[in-house]
Amino acid sequence: MSLLVVGSVAYDGIETPFGKTDRILGGSATYISLASSYFAKQINLVGVVGNDFADEDIDLLKSKDIDLEGLQIDKSGKTFFWKGKYHYDLNNRDTLDTQLNVFEHFNPVIPDSYKDARYVALGNIEPSLQGRVLEQVNKPDFVVMDTMNLWIEITPDALKETLKGVDLLVINDSEARELAEEPNLIKAADIVRAMGPKMLIIKKGEHGALLFTKNEIFSAPAYPVIDIFDPTGAGDSFLGGLLGWVDYTNDLSTDNLRKAVIFGSVMASFCVEKFGPERLKNLTEKEIYDRYREFRSLSRIPEVD
Amino acid sequence: MSLLVVGSVAYDGIETPFGKTDRILGGSATYISLASSYFAKQINLVGVVGNDFADEDIDLLKSKDIDLEGLQIDKSGKTFFWKGKYHYDLNNRDTLDTQLNVFEHFNPVIPDSYKDARYVALGNIEPSLQGRVLEQVNKPDFVVMDTMNLWIEITPDALKETLKGVDLLVINDSEARELAEEPNLIKAADIVRAMGPKMLIIKKGEHGALLFTKNEIFSAPAYPVIDIFDPTGAGDSFLGGLLGWVDYTNDLSTDNLRKAVIFGSVMASFCVEKFGPERLKNLTEKEIYDRYREFRSLSRIPEVD
Repeated sequence: MSLLVVGSVAYDGIETPFGKTDRILGGSATYISLASSYFAKQINLVGVVGNDFADEDIDLLKSKDIDLEGLQIDKSGKTFFWKGKYHYDLNNRDTLDTQLNVFEHFNPVIPDSYKDARYVALGNIEPSLQGRVLEQVNKPDFVVMDTMNLWIEITPDALKETLKGVDLLVINDSEARELAEEPNLIKAADIVRAMGPKMLIIKKGEHGALLFTKNEIFSAPAYPVIDIFDPTGAGDSFLGGLLGWVDYTNDLSTDNLRKAVIFGSVMASFCVEKFGPERLKNLTEKEIYDRYREFRSLSRIPEVD
Repeated sequence: MSLLVVGSVAYDGIETPFGKTDRILGGSATYISLASSYFAKQINLVGVVGNDFADEDIDLLKSKDIDLEGLQIDKSGKTFFWKGKYHYDLNNRDTLDTQLNVFEHFNPVIPDSYKDARYVALGNIEPSLQGRVLEQVNKPDFVVMDTMNLWIEITPDALKETLKGVDLLVINDSEARELAEEPNLIKAADIVRAMGPKMLIIKKGEHGALLFTKNEIFSAPAYPVIDIFDPTGAGDSFLGGLLGWVDYTNDLSTDNLRKAVIFGSVMASFCVEKFGPERLKNLTEKEIYDRYREFRSLSRIPEVD
């Protein structure tokens, strides 16, 4: 099996109520790859970085067995940079600076050796670029895609076109409501699934996540994190944990997708404990499985006679 | 066993995006009693109504084996009347009219035959009145209380005094944040529990509910109701279902409280399907247990090896 991850690789400047970092590794492809690396055997990353991308960050990704043949190094400019500040309640953030740099003209080119990917993660980039990835791969088993309000608003047609080739869309609640133009999430899910993706996950932050498949809804709890240090990358870590588990088990049953949602939630819950991807660097199998069991216990409903 | 329910008995005028009713039976004690009547054997209601209270509403309560010795009938005025209009998304409502009428001078007098109640439900009324109830009863096993933002803001001292005698407080997320003065719900729960109630339930509407006990958190899902017709009374039905189940089983273990939270959620999910308490009039045991099983299936996390 192999898992293809396409998205941004970036540097982030992050300020939260608990601390500040001027420059830390970030980007959707980074978080997805790191989170999935705890499960998936072969991860192939497609993205672009600039002339300032640090060797130690290359080394970090390689140390997690993430293949970088598809990582373009564009010497003509710098790496995508984003700077943001989180509010007191951590649910909202202000973007203070966005420098697209070499990411502005990113054209995802899938190396031949990546084209037979069984599983594809389309991180949050322009929908037409996500579509271009799907044109280059050879019938993957399962395509998972993320997007954001920006694309729902400025490129709705391209987004809807790309959605037709997607198996599972992973978005948050405000995005689901906006995409479906429907406030009730249960109804919104039906509307979004009619656009193409057979399955949909709606992430609700501190309220957990909902998985919608053909005949089922699965309601996953949120881990009761007392000290959320930095929410950056939580959504991408969710996607990485989820798809990493699917790749590891090679099982697309709804029962296994429930497990995948929880492993995604597990990775997201670790991610927010430290700045940027710090916490995703050195997790142990025991930590991951213990937290999975905590999720089970958190939402266990006893049987009644 | 007997269950004492104290709260408002009212008439409501309700407008939702789906319909309108000028006058329908309402009030916290009404919803709590009706919802708990599917489980509890003996329900004793304490409240006040006016000279306009209809015989058919008396008959309805009596038909559910709700004892009305404690229901004061004040001939000097009319029954408490509330009129509200729900917004399109049903999460917000405007109060259009509030006529306290005989409820304005409500003084809960507990009949002697009610004083040995094992379980007490303090519906949302002024905290000092809730406290007066606790002064009149003989050491109940378990006191459950509801309150609202209004009392947190205008009578915080009385509220905190009453909280000392309460075992389980049931409030919604905005109330929990306001009472604790803390945006993080997990931290807020600790702060509220330090005020007296050993246990706390935070209701999160479409996101389910959280039960906090000494050593555990239980995250209950919300039932995916596609057509919420009228949210009035959902919170009180939750409390009624919950305490009704506790009374029926006479079991205060955390495992049984998890079941109680789900039976509360079951009753709330039925309540919102029709106007006012309509749906709570004729439920069958099968409907209730089937929905309980749906909740279980909704949040079931499979085991991993």
